[in-house]
Amino acid sequence: MRAVDIIAKKRDGGELCGEEIAFLVAGYVTGEIPDYQVSAWAMAVFFNGMTARETASLTEAMLRSGKTIDLSGIPGPFVDKHSTGGVGDKTSLVLAPLVAALGIKDPMMSGRALGHTGGTLDKLEAIPGYRTSLSADEFRDILRRDGFAMTGQTAEIVPADKLLYALRDVTATVESIPLITASILSKKAAEGTQALVLDVKYGAGAFMKEASKGEELARSLVDTGAALGLTVSALLTDMDEPLGNKVGNFLEVEESLDCLEGRGPEDLMEVTLELAARMVVLGGKASTPQEGRRLCEQALESGKPRELFLQNVKSQGGNPDTLLSMRGTYRSPVRAEIKAPKDGYISRIDAWNVGHASVHLGVGRSRAGDTVCPTAGVEFHSKRGSRVNAGDRIMTVWAADEAGINAALPRLAQAVEYSSAPPSPRKLVLKEVN
Amino acid sequence: MRAVDIIAKKRDGGELCGEEIAFLVAGYVTGEIPDYQVSAWAMAVFFNGMTARETASLTEAMLRSGKTIDLSGIPGPFVDKHSTGGVGDKTSLVLAPLVAALGIKDPMMSGRALGHTGGTLDKLEAIPGYRTSLSADEFRDILRRDGFAMTGQTAEIVPADKLLYALRDVTATVESIPLITASILSKKAAEGTQALVLDVKYGAGAFMKEASKGEELARSLVDTGAALGLTVSALLTDMDEPLGNKVGNFLEVEESLDCLEGRGPEDLMEVTLELAARMVVLGGKASTPQEGRRLCEQALESGKPRELFLQNVKSQGGNPDTLLSMRGTYRSPVRAEIKAPKDGYISRIDAWNVGHASVHLGVGRSRAGDTVCPTAGVEFHSKRGSRVNAGDRIMTVWAADEAGINAALPRLAQAVEYSSAPPSPRKLVLKEVN
Repeated sequence: MRAVDIIAKKRDGGELCGEEIAFLVAGYVTGEIPDYQVSAWAMAVFFNGMTARETASLTEAMLRSGKTIDLSGIPGPFVDKHSTGGVGDKTSLVLAPLVAALGIKDPMMSGRALGHTGGTLDKLEAIPGYRTSLSADEFRDILRRDGFAMTGQTAEIVPADKLLYALRDVTATVESIPLITASILSKKAAEGTQALVLDVKYGAGAFMKEASKGEELARSLVDTGAALGLTVSALLTDMDEPLGNKVGNFLEVEESLDCLEGRGPEDLMEVTLELAARMVVLGGKASTPQEGRRLCEQALESGKPRELFLQNVKSQGGNPDTLLSMRGTYRSPVRAEIKAPKDGYISRIDAWNVGHASVHLGVGRSRAGDTVCPTAGVEFHSKRGSRVNAGDRIMTVWAADEAGINAALPRLAQAVEYSSAPPSPRKLVLKEVN
Repeated sequence: MRAVDIIAKKRDGGELCGEEIAFLVAGYVTGEIPDYQVSAWAMAVFFNGMTARETASLTEAMLRSGKTIDLSGIPGPFVDKHSTGGVGDKTSLVLAPLVAALGIKDPMMSGRALGHTGGTLDKLEAIPGYRTSLSADEFRDILRRDGFAMTGQTAEIVPADKLLYALRDVTATVESIPLITASILSKKAAEGTQALVLDVKYGAGAFMKEASKGEELARSLVDTGAALGLTVSALLTDMDEPLGNKVGNFLEVEESLDCLEGRGPEDLMEVTLELAARMVVLGGKASTPQEGRRLCEQALESGKPRELFLQNVKSQGGNPDTLLSMRGTYRSPVRAEIKAPKDGYISRIDAWNVGHASVHLGVGRSRAGDTVCPTAGVEFHSKRGSRVNAGDRIMTVWAADEAGINAALPRLAQAVEYSSAPPSPRKLVLKEVN
């Protein structure tokens, strides 16, 4: 078997067999197949796509490139959630303790902020002392005790994805549905989950700008998951506007606590509950999403999810009392406000611009490896559909320094669009793909 | 400027500007842009093509990557010919002395056999003593004296093409018309020629199997040549059957001598004279191809081209008398014949199979760097359209050893197709593209 023939076959629209894909992935990881062949192949995949069978073979080959987490001996069910990335999306922090309160274990392996999108690990690390680099034993112990555990991907997990992702990033081959599918599912399969709810976002703040592309990705994820023996359910959700009222690492921890205390913003709660409802169904605790959602709402009222969240903070190195005492005050020193320039309605807040402005504030990263600031961010006082008068405060903004705030403010101001009439409503959850 | 943005632009169907292409080529040659980005870009070019402007920019950027041959001080006109590669194609050996006899200088920089196609340098080196690695000064001196000189490409000439060609070869990005165009024209522009006649071959023994693809390449070469200030004329010629009656390095030198003595096979003479006629027109010695062809025929009758050929053999290290004494006898030791299995007509001799069988005989190379045998090859006693009886000799085959002949014979036998009625005639020169 020769890599060049595999590239040519894909280039000419052929379907690669499992052996060919395994040969390519294994050879890439050992260094026998050079990156210049893999990048040419990835570009051919960008143009010609992959069949469901090829995508499943690729996902399996990537999964087999490293170690997997062994959850044997821990009682399930195991259900996780994954989002394709957005702005202000802190649903993971709420979901995991919420479904844990209903007896579902969430072995969550998360990522970091990159570009305009936030990262769960960065948010959790805004809690002083919180550690996200757990050993496999720690991960298992915390998962067993708290019902969920939050960790980063270690070097042994799916090394093929690390190599391939870094290569795709510099060769303009990121935006390929089969390659995205294999990247997501190989990591999720490696963490040991049995079922997965996917939050596939579309709109300005998502990687997929169009709902149709998002749906295509959702379909690919569900079908490939099935081929791998993973039950996957996907929701297509709106990421045109930031989710919730806070964007920033500690700010989002705060808002997650609000949600767990029944005081979360409506849009964030809606998406969180719809995702959690599917997790409850996949975990076998409810037979319909409606029943799942009712159970989630009851669980929130019981206070148990909040308790589990604080217990996990302690398990992973933080201090729950300190965390609670920092609410509302743990902020970066430089502060500014954005006010409405005229009377009217907010017709749109563009998540893309908010996300990129946040990088200037220190919330996110423009390059992998950059450090992030826990206390920077944005709080929205009004969002889409709000009636505002000229001079009303729309956002409060925090940054570590003047340079950051000066770079971010024009982009944040530009993110807000106004209209004289109320905007028509948008559906937060557009579609379910099973 | 970032390479990844240039790749993404091409991937998305955009037109790259001259600066972007120059940045990519220059960065690749210096090593600042890694091969994995260039291969992804090449695959995007394979899918999305290039505009005429982009192809011209690429050719220029490649040309500028190295040294060019300076022909100043030598009186012109300079006209060269290039073929896209075929089987039995020895037209260069006949053409160069032929047009030189008419006062046109041909500064010919040629290539070597690879895969099923032969190479001019390998054929000339079958003449004992003949050297094809000329210094720039030797090249100029011989060109001035003999009217033509035959050399290989040195390391300083278009280094970008060497790098890019080697990369394309292992990343399934060879078959791209703009990349082929830039590869051919950058080298031809570097040798100092002012005008170029292109023999774009199509059919089983050519890289382009279909005439329409060949025409597309011809159009690209003519237009890109014009953008570079090079006058290019292209003929689309048939390469379904080997050209002439002999395939093999010394065998083809012999047949070239036959042509120069007015005894060349009809098909080979037809293609040679049609190409030479265009060279005479581009060199300003005739105003129409018809007039150019008449001049070529008269020149051949004068014996001057044969004299110039033998003079060049001497100039480049060979001995003309020795060469003439070897005709008909300088052959590999193992000999076989292929005979007609039945009465009928030869309806086709497949050049692709003949070319690949020749690699087994030792005529060509399966990999760059392999050595070739001067004395191996095939002589056809009958070709397409011939009436044959069962048992008639169709080919004589020579190889250095039994293994070679055993590997080649079945493929050679398979290359010959028979019919009960005479096949319909094929046009050797399908079309002219200017």
